[in-house]
Amino acid sequence: MKKHNFNAGPCILPQVALENTAKAVLDLDGIGLSLITISHRSKEFQAIIDETEALWMELLNIPAGYKVLFLGGGASTQFCMVPYNLMKTKAAYVETGVWAKKAAKEAKLFGKVEVIASSVDKNFTYYPKVTNIPTDADYLHITTNNTIYGTELREDLNSPIPLVADMSSDIMSRPVDVSKYALIYGGAQKNVGPAGVTFVIVKEDILGKVDRPIPSMLDYRTHVDKGSMYNTPPCFAIYTMREVLKWVKAQGGVKAMEKLAIERAKVIYDEIDRNKMFVGTVEPASRSRMNICFVMAEKYKDKEEAFLEFAKSQGMVGIKGHRDVGGFRASAYNALPMESAKALVACMQEFEKKNA
Amino acid sequence: MKKHNFNAGPCILPQVALENTAKAVLDLDGIGLSLITISHRSKEFQAIIDETEALWMELLNIPAGYKVLFLGGGASTQFCMVPYNLMKTKAAYVETGVWAKKAAKEAKLFGKVEVIASSVDKNFTYYPKVTNIPTDADYLHITTNNTIYGTELREDLNSPIPLVADMSSDIMSRPVDVSKYALIYGGAQKNVGPAGVTFVIVKEDILGKVDRPIPSMLDYRTHVDKGSMYNTPPCFAIYTMREVLKWVKAQGGVKAMEKLAIERAKVIYDEIDRNKMFVGTVEPASRSRMNICFVMAEKYKDKEEAFLEFAKSQGMVGIKGHRDVGGFRASAYNALPMESAKALVACMQEFEKKNA
Repeated sequence: MKKHNFNAGPCILPQVALENTAKAVLDLDGIGLSLITISHRSKEFQAIIDETEALWMELLNIPAGYKVLFLGGGASTQFCMVPYNLMKTKAAYVETGVWAKKAAKEAKLFGKVEVIASSVDKNFTYYPKVTNIPTDADYLHITTNNTIYGTELREDLNSPIPLVADMSSDIMSRPVDVSKYALIYGGAQKNVGPAGVTFVIVKEDILGKVDRPIPSMLDYRTHVDKGSMYNTPPCFAIYTMREVLKWVKAQGGVKAMEKLAIERAKVIYDEIDRNKMFVGTVEPASRSRMNICFVMAEKYKDKEEAFLEFAKSQGMVGIKGHRDVGGFRASAYNALPMESAKALVACMQEFEKKNA
Repeated sequence: MKKHNFNAGPCILPQVALENTAKAVLDLDGIGLSLITISHRSKEFQAIIDETEALWMELLNIPAGYKVLFLGGGASTQFCMVPYNLMKTKAAYVETGVWAKKAAKEAKLFGKVEVIASSVDKNFTYYPKVTNIPTDADYLHITTNNTIYGTELREDLNSPIPLVADMSSDIMSRPVDVSKYALIYGGAQKNVGPAGVTFVIVKEDILGKVDRPIPSMLDYRTHVDKGSMYNTPPCFAIYTMREVLKWVKAQGGVKAMEKLAIERAKVIYDEIDRNKMFVGTVEPASRSRMNICFVMAEKYKDKEEAFLEFAKSQGMVGIKGHRDVGGFRASAYNALPMESAKALVACMQEFEKKNA
């Protein structure tokens, strides 16, 4: 049976990217060697990483003065690299969930953290207004999309201080005005590739302003200077990322991704709002297009397991909600076809017919 | 033409590991989803990482009290994680090449570094005797195999202080008495897998003895506590590592790898010593089985480019020496078949016939 992949990450990737990757693992472009057995210093791999970088610049329309880096260690390593490189005395954080809190926690090792907005009062079910940004903080850190709670900020904030954004789970799902950010980072394993590579878009002139010594691998300047090749990069993950970005471009770029994201999310949210057995968990204005969270309506609470079982029998994968929210989460990343969104809706409708 | 892959890393991997990986990228064990599109929290991936860990424990006969970790960031990140976690005031380092020096450089950010042995006087062409280990240092750091210079220490030192070893380029090429080490680490991209994952074998009771705050991702205890799943691990690279280790086991384990390494290196070194056009660069007692460095004999210095061209025409890949040594380097990692070693020798002999 066809599987509909709603995993929260690692998650669905374009089929053509998988096929090209599998081919390259056996033989890269007919050179008689596998992608993963060639030197990262070879002209073949240099061409791959160069094209990957060029696709980032083009797809997000990244202005001059910025570099795109491909690092290991995941977004979680960025939680400490950001303050290591940017915090002199104080930073402002917006608290919108587990990942935002983890980012703030690491920053506390390097200076003062001021939480200037939070949605913890309602279990992170809305995106708080970000106002009164303190001008004496070294930077403002936000998490644009909250994978666990299903909230999203789709506005590029006007910040009087350098703006740092964790965009792990919504990068490339809409055009972004990169010029409004000092640094954007994220794990690749949602919209742009497999687990194992982290992207960083950094404005070069924000670097080199702190006094603390920074270990080479944690210093963004190391990777800027060496074009992400200071040490052996995660070659395979970068290759697949390139294939994913080629697909994004072929589909029409981030504007096309945004159009699909809007339509795909609407199909699912409309059904959640219509179907009497289900309730969305997030305030409508904050609803994420990437992670759609919902639970059984009060009256049908005892049907949760039954729905999970039924959905599974229909080929739905990964729709169990995170333990912090419960219920269900349909992650609808770039590569998820509309067909899968409709299959989930059909599933919800059939379940309602049988059970409501 | 068949390629003989002498790349220094990323490098040759067993063909069966490549084939199984390519299959899993398309469909993991017939589940209808790709290895790289499933959750790292799925039972399928948990089984993969568990088996990978079990293979490490079995193949290296790792004693109780140790954990094996799979991290991102490369061995270069370990250069700072080691002192972050282990250095109170002072550490001893053995200086045997570029990587050893880089490791010592990062340690200097955390305390005093005492270089207790070095082979810099002869451009790292021998492995220095390691004696007079200072008992007041917090640990001793060694690099067992020096990829660039082709030297190797195959003795498990008796150290009165915790012994830390970068085994990036010779792990799994011989049995190791793990009980003599406090910590062993390395990038996978030589004998155990593709680029993108770093292995760490750590004795648990050496952790938690420093006072400095450690960022979560740089704290070994984080990864010990969470079984390398604190954040999303490099799933693909771990999968391929498992396939490589299954192959090592099927071949007869590290003893079989050692036997092959000895025979394979002998075939090449014997030819270097016999052939009047070539000279080995390393003192015989320190010669690495993994990276075999040689240059043209003085009389034939002008033939270097010609030999590289000829070798290339015969299918040899990756034999150009590192710029710090010049000449040639034949890396002979676990997966390199004897057939390739013999093909290189045939190449050298034919070149001698035509040119000497």
